Amino acid sequence: MSARKLTFIPGPIEFSDNVLAAMSTPSQAHTSPEFIKVFQSVLIKTRKMFCSAAASKSQPFVISGSGTLGWDLCGSNLVNQGDNVLVLSTGFFSDQFANCLKIYTDNVEVLEAPQFGASVDFKQLESKLSATSYDLITITQTDTSSGVLTDVEAVAKVVKKISPKTLIVVDAVCATACETLKFDDWGIDYVLTASQKAVGVPSGLSISIASSRAMEKALQRPKPSSFFADMKRWAPIMQAYESGKGAYFATPAVQLIHALNVSLDELLAADTQTIDARVAAHKAASDSFKDKLVNQLGLKLVPVSRDVAAHGLSVVYYPENVEGAALLSKMAANGFTIASGIYKEYKDKYFRIGHMGVSAVGERKQELNECFEALKLSLSELGYQK
Amino acid sequence: MSARKLTFIPGPIEFSDNVLAAMSTPSQAHTSPEFIKVFQSVLIKTRKMFCSAAASKSQPFVISGSGTLGWDLCGSNLVNQGDNVLVLSTGFFSDQFANCLKIYTDNVEVLEAPQFGASVDFKQLESKLSATSYDLITITQTDTSSGVLTDVEAVAKVVKKISPKTLIVVDAVCATACETLKFDDWGIDYVLTASQKAVGVPSGLSISIASSRAMEKALQRPKPSSFFADMKRWAPIMQAYESGKGAYFATPAVQLIHALNVSLDELLAADTQTIDARVAAHKAASDSFKDKLVNQLGLKLVPVSRDVAAHGLSVVYYPENVEGAALLSKMAANGFTIASGIYKEYKDKYFRIGHMGVSAVGERKQELNECFEALKLSLSELGYQK
Repeated sequence: MSARKLTFIPGPIEFSDNVLAAMSTPSQAHTSPEFIKVFQSVLIKTRKMFCSAAASKSQPFVISGSGTLGWDLCGSNLVNQGDNVLVLSTGFFSDQFANCLKIYTDNVEVLEAPQFGASVDFKQLESKLSATSYDLITITQTDTSSGVLTDVEAVAKVVKKISPKTLIVVDAVCATACETLKFDDWGIDYVLTASQKAVGVPSGLSISIASSRAMEKALQRPKPSSFFADMKRWAPIMQAYESGKGAYFATPAVQLIHALNVSLDELLAADTQTIDARVAAHKAASDSFKDKLVNQLGLKLVPVSRDVAAHGLSVVYYPENVEGAALLSKMAANGFTIASGIYKEYKDKYFRIGHMGVSAVGERKQELNECFEALKLSLSELGYQK
Repeated sequence: MSARKLTFIPGPIEFSDNVLAAMSTPSQAHTSPEFIKVFQSVLIKTRKMFCSAAASKSQPFVISGSGTLGWDLCGSNLVNQGDNVLVLSTGFFSDQFANCLKIYTDNVEVLEAPQFGASVDFKQLESKLSATSYDLITITQTDTSSGVLTDVEAVAKVVKKISPKTLIVVDAVCATACETLKFDDWGIDYVLTASQKAVGVPSGLSISIASSRAMEKALQRPKPSSFFADMKRWAPIMQAYESGKGAYFATPAVQLIHALNVSLDELLAADTQTIDARVAAHKAASDSFKDKLVNQLGLKLVPVSRDVAAHGLSVVYYPENVEGAALLSKMAANGFTIASGIYKEYKDKYFRIGHMGVSAVGERKQELNECFEALKLSLSELGYQK
């Protein structure tokens, strides 16, 4: 057992030693040649992480903020008042995205999954898309509250077929580097993520990418609805840094961007051109962990089937007669911080364990096994038997 | 000379070893007891930094973002469409604040200082305040583009006398911990700052405080204009952490908040109840540095008189026959990154040296002397003689 509790919530995750060391990079001016080089490298690698080539004229953004800021970047740049927006909801985070977008247009519809733990129904989706002309649809690839994975490629195909003008937006906060996402190939218009999950960097960065079609809409807005979240102001800054020049709108988070540079190298290490190997590793780690939860411990997953179970975390019902707070506290005593539930009336019925980054697929991946053993021990200390 | 260039721009500044070490704090869950304790301590000390007692019912905010986000926090919470806003401008950053607020109301007036390097004219200010009923006035305490200090206490007195209902907002990004600011005593309604200047922490945090009067306006808004910048959503989160409980709206920047905790201890160290000693140290360091610039090197400061010269940086005209880019590049060769000008047609006529934090008033304060010597050497290498 480690000398300190390990953080196995679905973000912030455990960070690699090299990423943490980069957080202590001594001060650099945000327009110094030393920092420009690092930010340039980050933007180029961010494209690789999202599977988007520079030739597609997509626009990456790395901005101080949290994942939540990505919702406002979407709302305040890609949604005009009066726009019809369809939000696919598989949990708390999808619903919060809808709440954010309601600030920017009065016409936000939510298509809820038929039950907790399921993804949306494709027949309902097709009928919605046929009935209304949506300007924008949002997909929460992994809803961190339910652990439900939505098949972004399949949704995108349906949207392209029925309503090709609809902008496709993906909240990938808990999915990036865990789930496959081909930004260019699938014709996605905006993907937002954050630093503190499988990206492997302490919280504080909003990371996203917009398609040329999305940028066109953002740049044509008659009036901005935010200053800090205005893509029109950020795009030239990101373009300057990506081309190796400095520019100023707001001071970038120099140390976090250094840490992101290190982490992206780790994410792309196995195959410096793509994120595929990292995604595959997360899938394998997740499959194995879930198999053990189900087969060895007899636990029940919240996702209704394995094909809608996300790979960055496991969301699990408490077994009967095991009280939630007691299990979390036993786990803490046994060395691991795990997370409680967060969705509506279900929140006291399940817990969440994150398995992303260095502790799941990196140089400390044995920690995920240790977490499993700690769970087994904690349950048994609480009198649970399979 | 240090093995690396030292960052002597007006932010980001050089950071203390302990602050940098805190940036590498291993992962903690944002709702873990360990982190709650740290965030609680940060919020309590943030009040001390701003000279605001909890009894005043003011509300501190520490949010992932840059200083710029503070402008949107002001605009999207304290300015309603149609509000009359008066911006006192002493440079680029005041003007940008005005540009931000124009998103939130059509009625933004800018009272410009009569000349570059001066602060605003108080007769003009009084006449403006008498002619129009302003809902909000903004003061940029130190405009980082000109190095001009505006007397916030004096402006506040005039506002209180002529237009007591006007909310008083201070951009103290480059002033906090360098200049006196008594939030409660002077009746200020909102102060915004950022982590990377005299607060002494890497960039990535927006730090601000709102009065009970400001919060009343924010909480009464019929409809938010932003999600991420909505004080109504953030206030209960900050209140929970300050009272020692966890709460979730968006993931806080755990490592930056640890670093802020360490830095606030350093800022308040000489007198744990107030920031006064730190402010006095910055004033003394600035006075001595400026004396040497003027007396030993015969340079001319941009601020028209010493009573409007800010203490966190020195803004200095290039001497005749010294080319700006050449001086900056000599300074880099001699170990220091300093900053160019940034304001309109003056930008190629002056340079800026920051003197905040550990390198100016902390355990490495000899570095400010080394910076002066490097400047002397660089100028002489360029053929300049007093």
